[in-house]
Amino acid sequence: MKFLVRLTTTFPAGLSDDERARLLAAESARGRELVAAGTIEHLWRLPGRLANVGVWSVRDADELHAAIASLPLWRFMDVRVEALASHPLTEGAAEPLASQPAAGGAVDSR
Amino acid sequence: MKFLVRLTTTFPAGLSDDERARLLAAESARGRELVAAGTIEHLWRLPGRLANVGVWSVRDADELHAAIASLPLWRFMDVRVEALASHPLTEGAAEPLASQPAAGGAVDSR
Amino acid sequence: MKFLVRLTTTFPAGLSDDERARLLAAESARGRELVAAGTIEHLWRLPGRLANVGVWSVRDADELHAAIASLPLWRFMDVRVEALASHPLTEGAAEPLASQPAAGGAVDSR
Amino acid sequence: MKFLVRLTTTFPAGLSDDERARLLAAESARGRELVAAGTIEHLWRLPGRLANVGVWSVRDADELHAAIASLPLWRFMDVRVEALASHPLTEGAAEPLASQPAAGGAVDSR
Amino acid sequence: MKFLVRLTTTFPAGLSDDERARLLAAESARGRELVAAGTIEHLWRLPGRLANVGVWSVRDADELHAAIASLPLWRFMDVRVEALASHPLTEGAAEPLASQPAAGGAVDSR
Amino acid sequence: MKFLVRLTTTFPAGLSDDERARLLAAESARGRELVAAGTIEHLWRLPGRLANVGVWSVRDADELHAAIASLPLWRFMDVRVEALASHPLTEGAAEPLASQPAAGGAVDSR
Amino acid sequence: MKFLVRLTTTFPAGLSDDERARLLAAESARGRELVAAGTIEHLWRLPGRLANVGVWSVRDADELHAAIASLPLWRFMDVRVEALASHPLTEGAAEPLASQPAAGGAVDSR
Amino acid sequence: MKFLVRLTTTFPAGLSDDERARLLAAESARGRELVAAGTIEHLWRLPGRLANVGVWSVRDADELHAAIASLPLWRFMDVRVEALASHPLTEGAAEPLASQPAAGGAVDSR
Amino acid sequence: MKFLVRLTTTFPAGLSDDERARLLAAESARGRELVAAGTIEHLWRLPGRLANVGVWSVRDADELHAAIASLPLWRFMDVRVEALASHPLTEGAAEPLASQPAAGGAVDSR
Amino acid sequence: MKFLVRLTTTFPAGLSDDERARLLAAESARGRELVAAGTIEHLWRLPGRLANVGVWSVRDADELHAAIASLPLWRFMDVRVEALASHPLTEGAAEPLASQPAAGGAVDSR
Repeated sequence: MKFLVRLTTTFPAGLSDDERARLLAAESARGRELVAAGTIEHLWRLPGRLANVGVWSVRDADELHAAIASLPLWRFMDVRVEALASHPLTEGAAEPLASQPAAGGAVDSR
Repeated sequence: MKFLVRLTTTFPAGLSDDERARLLAAESARGRELVAAGTIEHLWRLPGRLANVGVWSVRDADELHAAIASLPLWRFMDVRVEALASHPLTEGAAEPLASQPAAGGAVDSR
Repeated sequence: MKFLVRLTTTFPAGLSDDERARLLAAESARGRELVAAGTIEHLWRLPGRLANVGVWSVRDADELHAAIASLPLWRFMDVRVEALASHPLTEGAAEPLASQPAAGGAVDSR
Repeated sequence: MKFLVRLTTTFPAGLSDDERARLLAAESARGRELVAAGTIEHLWRLPGRLANVGVWSVRDADELHAAIASLPLWRFMDVRVEALASHPLTEGAAEPLASQPAAGGAVDSR
Repeated sequence: MKFLVRLTTTFPAGLSDDERARLLAAESARGRELVAAGTIEHLWRLPGRLANVGVWSVRDADELHAAIASLPLWRFMDVRVEALASHPLTEGAAEPLASQPAAGGAVDSR
Repeated sequence: MKFLVRLTTTFPAGLSDDERARLLAAESARGRELVAAGTIEHLWRLPGRLANVGVWSVRDADELHAAIASLPLWRFMDVRVEALASHPLTEGAAEPLASQPAAGGAVDSR
Repeated sequence: MKFLVRLTTTFPAGLSDDERARLLAAESARGRELVAAGTIEHLWRLPGRLANVGVWSVRDADELHAAIASLPLWRFMDVRVEALASHPLTEGAAEPLASQPAAGGAVDSR
Repeated sequence: MKFLVRLTTTFPAGLSDDERARLLAAESARGRELVAAGTIEHLWRLPGRLANVGVWSVRDADELHAAIASLPLWRFMDVRVEALASHPLTEGAAEPLASQPAAGGAVDSR
Repeated sequence: MKFLVRLTTTFPAGLSDDERARLLAAESARGRELVAAGTIEHLWRLPGRLANVGVWSVRDADELHAAIASLPLWRFMDVRVEALASHPLTEGAAEPLASQPAAGGAVDSR
Repeated sequence: MKFLVRLTTTFPAGLSDDERARLLAAESARGRELVAAGTIEHLWRLPGRLANVGVWSVRDADELHAAIASLPLWRFMDVRVEALASHPLTEGAAEPLASQPAAGGAVDSR
């Protein structure tokens, strides 16, 4: 299952710079693990904001919750989750999208 | 430049089934062209809704407008667009994400 | 996977009473099939509105989309979908909830 | 009467880890009691968020208020409540849904 | 059980004046019945709008749904429903509010 | 003039239990006065929330402001106010609603 | 009593130019009457929109409803109403605002 | 130019009563100056809230910003501003509204 | 005075292609006039949508209303208007922004 | 690429006047650099609010993020970003808008 996950971080006012640096280092390490494990498949920054949007690939909603809750900054995050279904134009795409015959799908037949 | 594009289609009440079928076939053909051209990089259905969300890769906002406006169903679509920046954990990823050293980034340092 | 699904129907102004009756009968038959198949696990009316909320149990978001899109009234529905994770207080409950030891979970440790 | 109840917890910034642990243990114990009493009939986590959604079965809105207000974390919760009516497809279901004849109801006749 | 019910009517553009008059007369008759039956306990107009807000007294959400759905104008209404609990300052008030001792309640202890 | 008034209280994080108890007692006393004076005509709790909704009867908006601002918890309240007009089905009701002839009004003729 | 009233008109698509002109003339005549009667005390256009905002002076919400509902374009209007209280800086101002001693009020002590 | 200005004040939790009194006195003095100068033309309280709405008359948006930013409570205010155009029914009204011929305007021709 | 103006066009379903083409040509001609007159100072498309955002320079809100209402497509437009004040970093800029000394302003001192 | 950027600053309650002054001076200096570099092309204040709206010209969303994140007040800002496409009426305008022939574009053909 894939999910579109939107994470927005708001640091509390009183957080010291040291604690902030420690949290960011821990977050970076945990993020690398989730990318390496294939849990985070795609990740983009939302420009100008302390926020990202990504595609997470997990077995189900339980595994998704565990993965997000494992982030060191989770308690400072607003989290939005949307389940994603495959689209006829691109589903089953192990090879690059453009090289496969996109059966009967259509951008609009969502 | 990459954009997160959310397309929701609402057919007008009076559209005949024939016109609907004709539009869907045209939309499907145009969608395949945009996937083949690499303009639509990723595409997912939002389950239960006549809607999709995708990542479109274009030169700039002008090319994005031209691509979206070329969809035969465009006049029936509600369109939401968000510019995406690359994320330190995954940027520059020509090879699979997990195999590259993710420099100093962090999920939270968005 | 379980999903909380909220369906709100708005009939177009010009629909004849005959067509409405025909659609409702077809919807009723399809609804019984989805309940019988275990796809719709729980279903409640939202009082005063042409709307329901239910818990749908499916393999993944693709199957959810196919099930919802199979409803004869789908094209008149506004659909909201939320993925559900199991909760520590009730997960794995094949027998009635109250009879099992709810391990370490808590209502608040969501 | 059944209610769909959505609980979202936000801990205040200054709460110590000890106080948080003490509150979570108390919340867990109270949650088990409400499940055992049949007040909380169903409960799911909203993945990625400190939030749950459940179906609460009570005599009326007064009993619902008393039950929710008895949660040790109540003062940190945002609470949303919706009254639920029974649905023709599933009402009166003491036995499993699929085994009963669903009279004249329909998914759309909400 | 009491519910705060907010009804907003929007007539479709093409409705003839005759049909409108017929519907309003039927609505008026049905409204009188619901007031006479004690189902509608209080009713106020929202000034300037084709809308009212009222307190409906029913056995449960099923009876509330049946009562609202019995309105001849129901299919043109947007309906908002909120369950009401009794308040310590006024609960059990068979006699006028001001004459009873309001035990330990408070406006703020809601 | 009658107003529908919705009051939601949010206590600041640092308030001591003593101060909270003192405020609640003062609020309770003031609430009883407003009920006794006929200013608060009806009052209901919104179940699960630190909130109430009521019908306040005052000379005009100035008196309404003075009454609400006299609540000891006012500075912690979010306040929503809606002016209410009388409804043809129930206006002029000094005696119980059901016993009076509801002239030409209609639920929908709001 | 004074009310801040916001009126936004949306003409239905199929209205003929003749009917539109007839309605506008009738609306203009009725508007002049309401200004002459002192019901509409102030009136401004919201630039770029088919909308105005005004201060209406009436006995109570019933008279406000009657006045707004008397507009020939009422059935095409979205109407927002807010009750206004007098402000300490300007209340009792029969003479020009600047010439009177504004007692103990303050812009912020609203 | 006239602007509809809506000011809502939220005092920070920790403000001492002395500082609050000092700020309110300063605000009151500054408000009197703005009324005397003709900058604030009309001002009403929104009943039950620490908020007002007014009509401010200034040369342009720069002068409006300077006037609002000169309020001692500005840093605690949420500010909403809407530009106002004159309305055909009342424009050019140096004398009382009711005594002038309102040319061709209409309430609806906004 | 400058205003940020956001225009979104929605064509009615039944508009013929001929009428649409006629309207677009008229709109184009009127747009060129407003640009030539200096009324529209800047104009950008919102990509993917039938919408633009621009900076309009006018004497006051009355002239702004007249300019927007002169657009042949006005009756199909949703219009949002925000008054703009000059910013210390760029005000008084007759010559290119970068060549002038930006006095004491700051991006944040808005 | 051009972006419409809306920045709203909220200072934390406890910030000292010294720290505020230091931050504002730093922000002013950085703002001048971004204007001098041509990154900030246009900038306006939203009157009455600690907020501005501007047009930023950057290579892509990555450069936009870096520019916004370089503001000393960034951590206190709410940031809204919209990508802008060129408009047929004004695109390619190196010389003043009014002097160039605006090809086939139209205000409405966005």
